[in-house]
Amino acid sequence: MIKHLRSAADLDAETATLILDTAGEMAALSGREVKKLPALRGRTVVNLFYEDSTRTRISFEAAAKRLSADVINFSAKGSSVSKGESLKDTALTLQAMGADAVVIRHSASGAPHRLAGWVDGSVVNAGDGTHEHPTQALLDAYTMRSRLGRLDGLRVAIVGDVLHSRVARSNVLLLTTLGAQVTVVGPPTLIPVDVAAALSDKLQVSYDLDEVLPDSDVVMMLRVQTERMQDSYFPSAREYSRRYGLDVPRLKRLPEHAIVMHPGPMNRGMEIAPEVADSPRSTIVEQVANGVSVRMAVLYLLLGGK
Amino acid sequence: MIKHLRSAADLDAETATLILDTAGEMAALSGREVKKLPALRGRTVVNLFYEDSTRTRISFEAAAKRLSADVINFSAKGSSVSKGESLKDTALTLQAMGADAVVIRHSASGAPHRLAGWVDGSVVNAGDGTHEHPTQALLDAYTMRSRLGRLDGLRVAIVGDVLHSRVARSNVLLLTTLGAQVTVVGPPTLIPVDVAAALSDKLQVSYDLDEVLPDSDVVMMLRVQTERMQDSYFPSAREYSRRYGLDVPRLKRLPEHAIVMHPGPMNRGMEIAPEVADSPRSTIVEQVANGVSVRMAVLYLLLGGK
Amino acid sequence: MIKHLRSAADLDAETATLILDTAGEMAALSGREVKKLPALRGRTVVNLFYEDSTRTRISFEAAAKRLSADVINFSAKGSSVSKGESLKDTALTLQAMGADAVVIRHSASGAPHRLAGWVDGSVVNAGDGTHEHPTQALLDAYTMRSRLGRLDGLRVAIVGDVLHSRVARSNVLLLTTLGAQVTVVGPPTLIPVDVAAALSDKLQVSYDLDEVLPDSDVVMMLRVQTERMQDSYFPSAREYSRRYGLDVPRLKRLPEHAIVMHPGPMNRGMEIAPEVADSPRSTIVEQVANGVSVRMAVLYLLLGGK
Repeated sequence: MIKHLRSAADLDAETATLILDTAGEMAALSGREVKKLPALRGRTVVNLFYEDSTRTRISFEAAAKRLSADVINFSAKGSSVSKGESLKDTALTLQAMGADAVVIRHSASGAPHRLAGWVDGSVVNAGDGTHEHPTQALLDAYTMRSRLGRLDGLRVAIVGDVLHSRVARSNVLLLTTLGAQVTVVGPPTLIPVDVAAALSDKLQVSYDLDEVLPDSDVVMMLRVQTERMQDSYFPSAREYSRRYGLDVPRLKRLPEHAIVMHPGPMNRGMEIAPEVADSPRSTIVEQVANGVSVRMAVLYLLLGGK
Repeated sequence: MIKHLRSAADLDAETATLILDTAGEMAALSGREVKKLPALRGRTVVNLFYEDSTRTRISFEAAAKRLSADVINFSAKGSSVSKGESLKDTALTLQAMGADAVVIRHSASGAPHRLAGWVDGSVVNAGDGTHEHPTQALLDAYTMRSRLGRLDGLRVAIVGDVLHSRVARSNVLLLTTLGAQVTVVGPPTLIPVDVAAALSDKLQVSYDLDEVLPDSDVVMMLRVQTERMQDSYFPSAREYSRRYGLDVPRLKRLPEHAIVMHPGPMNRGMEIAPEVADSPRSTIVEQVANGVSVRMAVLYLLLGGK
Repeated sequence: MIKHLRSAADLDAETATLILDTAGEMAALSGREVKKLPALRGRTVVNLFYEDSTRTRISFEAAAKRLSADVINFSAKGSSVSKGESLKDTALTLQAMGADAVVIRHSASGAPHRLAGWVDGSVVNAGDGTHEHPTQALLDAYTMRSRLGRLDGLRVAIVGDVLHSRVARSNVLLLTTLGAQVTVVGPPTLIPVDVAAALSDKLQVSYDLDEVLPDSDVVMMLRVQTERMQDSYFPSAREYSRRYGLDVPRLKRLPEHAIVMHPGPMNRGMEIAPEVADSPRSTIVEQVANGVSVRMAVLYLLLGGK
């Protein structure tokens, strides 16, 4: 088993599949009867969050607690960080305190890689800059597999600001490893020609959502980072929504069996219409539930729980 | 048993009495010998606080932990809320994560009612806008009953900004359900004539504290929201304190057996004099202790603990 | 056993030695096999932090959880404190909620002493103003004893802004109680003549670091509070670093066996050079690890765990 989960690239097909299978067992065990498993009793999981992300933090916290681990939440706001402490010194501190796993969210791409060089425990990347968010990709893959029965050969469209999305990056890596056929879709300013060319040996690139939908088993809408919409390369909100928003007419262009995904939190009315978000084909709530099972599996396997 | 506690109006006399009786058992069990009960082992209680209220949050957290539940604290500051996530999306997230109970504090009156429509777990209102704070009313009723032996027929004066107080609203509902005789007392600007008329079939309204005190078994001082004192309808601080503050001379107007209550935190020297707050007739510290027992009882009964 | 740890002056040599010995047992037990001890099961430890100090808070939280206590974190930011609640009312609240121990960090010197007058539980000072930080002194003493085998007769140099350092104050008290020979070293503006005179019966004062180093078994570098560097009595950063910073040439002036300590977080390049901080003679990471063991011992002994 791998020791760290810093990137979806840490996962070969066999390891990824083991995590998904284990997540399935966790989901089955976490029913009403067995809400708490003793697997990680006495282990300490630290949530080291330099960026706000309550949803992700709570998901990891719930996962660790269901495995009976002790959880310590460390928010960089109001921490020694404001006194100028470096990530390295923080790492040494956590190391000295005996953290068995450190779940890190950081605005700097690559922070989890550096952290892994400084601590003995396992490092789990909970989102680093515009780089990666591998447990999000795992929970997305888990959701696709549960709904559609397989990943190999599945046609997945990932729609939006692909260039800046760590969710997109981790999904592309994991899904191609697992044999899915990925098409990324977005405005030309957000998938420039050179980027498209570089990507083109592993996946398809399209600028036309309507064309892609009829041939998709999964359409994954990325969150629009509204703070980026000030940038010159970003279309206007109305233009973006008109061309790349998933509304009811577009939903009808999808095959009968296709599902709609979103990593949340959604901008209802921007990249996704409320009726689509709440439709039975949307897996958005399932994704959140699956997130806890997948994170249980990751912590369990990385920490060698028994 | 009811599933949610959104309002004191959710409680009929029988249910309210069951909660108070159960709180008594919890208090007896929570002595030194049995500090932790296994009743909610493996259950998850989420504290979803959109407003700061450390005291209430800690009280619920202590209650849940004494029942062996896992507690996850969610503060809306530094959360996805700042990314524009709606209460509905947050609710679906908590639902998906398997929260068995959600304790919500929100600045919007009615938020707990809406939340209860979106989650499978139990919803407990920990204060919503100027609307209600039902566990505060329960702990107040529990304190009165412990000190004075009964609620039926008890004469309770509630003093202050009745119009804007969720504590007052929940207390009026619960106390009248349980047979107490409530008099609300405050300046005319804070209990306007039309409001007084609407209230008058269920309770007494008075603008003269000195007149009410000799006939009260309980006097409950409301906290002055100092931020409201800027408003034109609010008397000056000195005027308010002179007419409606509970000082030592007024304490002497109360019957021998009468008790003084305050939900905290107090403005010492404003609505209550320090000597009164610290007198043996004050139940303010007991109220806090009883708060944990009452919240244990509420969580235990709503979640069907065993 | 003492009930509170408000100051290093609460500790006579026998009690301090018992804590250090117990910390050694805790460290031995907290190996991989026995990560969690049942000693404080059902007890509640409150971390009452009026100042940000994530490292200290996490250290106490980890210590309490390894002893199976329930931990409630109370940060004064976003608390009733912002509504004007006094420390006394907060204390009464924690008291009523049944806190068995309150770990307090406060900007006001003496706050732990006042708190101890209001609660039945044990009070542990986690840093009060410029006054004291006794568990830091205990973990420093533990570290010296582990590395060098004894404290009696040990020659310890404490270097920096001695005047304003609670770490220095607690260390001076504890180390002299345990028989060490302490020399405080710093610029004359930070150890004025009258202060030096007052200290001189218990310890040595020097303004010349280079002179002190060859005769030191331990050199403890204090953190420069960069916010104080604006003050007129503080030398310029370059001047301070040049005269009192521990760099590689100075490291070589120390005896072979001598160790370098720092309470963290460090200003690398200011009071300590990066090469020195990371050298094998530096105990900085050990100090953090020892902090958890020492705090376990303090909580265990104060609460009479079994």
